[in-house]
Amino acid sequence: MTFSAKDPAYEQRIRESFERQKVMALLGAVLTRVEPGRVTIELPFRDDLTQQHGFFHAGIVGTVADSAGGYAGYSLMPAGSSVLSVEYKMNLLAPADGQRLVATGQVVRSGRTLTVCDLEVQVVKDGAPSLCARGMQTLICLDRGPRGAEAG
Amino acid sequence: MTFSAKDPAYEQRIRESFERQKVMALLGAVLTRVEPGRVTIELPFRDDLTQQHGFFHAGIVGTVADSAGGYAGYSLMPAGSSVLSVEYKMNLLAPADGQRLVATGQVVRSGRTLTVCDLEVQVVKDGAPSLCARGMQTLICLDRGPRGAEAG
Amino acid sequence: MTFSAKDPAYEQRIRESFERQKVMALLGAVLTRVEPGRVTIELPFRDDLTQQHGFFHAGIVGTVADSAGGYAGYSLMPAGSSVLSVEYKMNLLAPADGQRLVATGQVVRSGRTLTVCDLEVQVVKDGAPSLCARGMQTLICLDRGPRGAEAG
Amino acid sequence: MTFSAKDPAYEQRIRESFERQKVMALLGAVLTRVEPGRVTIELPFRDDLTQQHGFFHAGIVGTVADSAGGYAGYSLMPAGSSVLSVEYKMNLLAPADGQRLVATGQVVRSGRTLTVCDLEVQVVKDGAPSLCARGMQTLICLDRGPRGAEAG
Repeated sequence: MTFSAKDPAYEQRIRESFERQKVMALLGAVLTRVEPGRVTIELPFRDDLTQQHGFFHAGIVGTVADSAGGYAGYSLMPAGSSVLSVEYKMNLLAPADGQRLVATGQVVRSGRTLTVCDLEVQVVKDGAPSLCARGMQTLICLDRGPRGAEAG
Repeated sequence: MTFSAKDPAYEQRIRESFERQKVMALLGAVLTRVEPGRVTIELPFRDDLTQQHGFFHAGIVGTVADSAGGYAGYSLMPAGSSVLSVEYKMNLLAPADGQRLVATGQVVRSGRTLTVCDLEVQVVKDGAPSLCARGMQTLICLDRGPRGAEAG
Repeated sequence: MTFSAKDPAYEQRIRESFERQKVMALLGAVLTRVEPGRVTIELPFRDDLTQQHGFFHAGIVGTVADSAGGYAGYSLMPAGSSVLSVEYKMNLLAPADGQRLVATGQVVRSGRTLTVCDLEVQVVKDGAPSLCARGMQTLICLDRGPRGAEAG
Repeated sequence: MTFSAKDPAYEQRIRESFERQKVMALLGAVLTRVEPGRVTIELPFRDDLTQQHGFFHAGIVGTVADSAGGYAGYSLMPAGSSVLSVEYKMNLLAPADGQRLVATGQVVRSGRTLTVCDLEVQVVKDGAPSLCARGMQTLICLDRGPRGAEAG
């Protein structure tokens, strides 16, 4: 699917918002690709991101996927708007065992109020990527600040 | 729903596994209540856990919920087994705006291979808890180590 | 959770809408309980509602649950509005093997635009109910007709 | 993704199972394409498949998607096995307004016990297809009959 952004400054707007998502810095996540309707976030492995078996924690897989989808949706929203996740779901297809996660959000439906994204996470091990999670997400676009938010 | 644990040492087994989930220490999460089929994890607010509006990031809400559910399920599994999340989904009901998250996983179906949990997250603001997220999760019990895992 | 309906004629509005859901008549579903924020639909077993093993089909379990949740949400919406499902998910906990399904939708979050419901389906076999499915659902309230719908 | 079927008679096995899903005949659904890991089911519009606005009911959209995914997964399972849906979720992207639904299930992960499918539903209006729903599904493969089922 191909989309065009209404706001020509969408990339700068997203990069500034990403900087304000302080949890991304805590995890060490990097915003790599920003296109209209499609955003990729990468996360290098660190020992303090793991679950009990030493792989990336499923919640961390979901966290980078949720942000990638949120920004994919936000790229198509107007300047001055806010975005919030209404819901997301992740199917964990294989242990996230590798040196790096590559999470991509892709808009599949862009509406005035609601946006739906596909989420996909690859884990890169010894240079070879493999699919470790897929999900879907619903976003809401708010004209106003998040305190008037309909959802989370 | 009430369940009884097959493994009398379930609480110690869970607390040891939680210690090995290094991401819990990174976030500052605390395992508070451990009962058969029901586990609670709490997460005090920190500025580096936030999304762009200064609230707990939705992915972090999902991370503590996923771990709470995983351990709720694990409490009913036999000694020597492993647990992995197959899938989870979160509905974000309100901005997670407060000083503390309280995430509870509750088993609703305990099977030999698969376990299903309800997930609920309260946010505590100025002493008052309110529901900020609800979800569901499917877990798989493995006899063997996670590399033979059916799912992530 | 307890809710109060803004529209005193909510029950009549729901019963009329249910009559227009022609698929409910095809399946033989009956709208039994209508309360503010909580609606129950029952479905007697018929051989032509089954999957390959002779139990209620998972999609039919989802269909009555989706309608029960939709009307639970609709009970709290204003007169003149429309309701549509944005998304729903079902965890199938046990084969739906019995003489009757009892599907209940319960609002857990009621907002101006979006409503979130818990969905629960019991199957009654030889007089004894047991939980066979649980789910969650997001609904959107439209001021206008469904052709201006944000979602499905 | 491309898969190969272990059971050379997979198509016949699926077509026989589809015949036993009596709800498919009730709805008027037709099994059109059967390939290893990918199955399509079509459903012509009928007035008795509708919700309150005269479009296909969201639950019916989910029912054909769930069956398409179930058979996509089943195509890769061994002869003599059974398949059951563990969970499924649907995002309803647009009103299902048209003369025909085309639901496709595509395996994204095929394991010994669990299989995960992408679900996609197009609605065809005046000859033009458009995406009206997307979802995901987890299936379990049983060696034995469904009464020993781990899930519904």
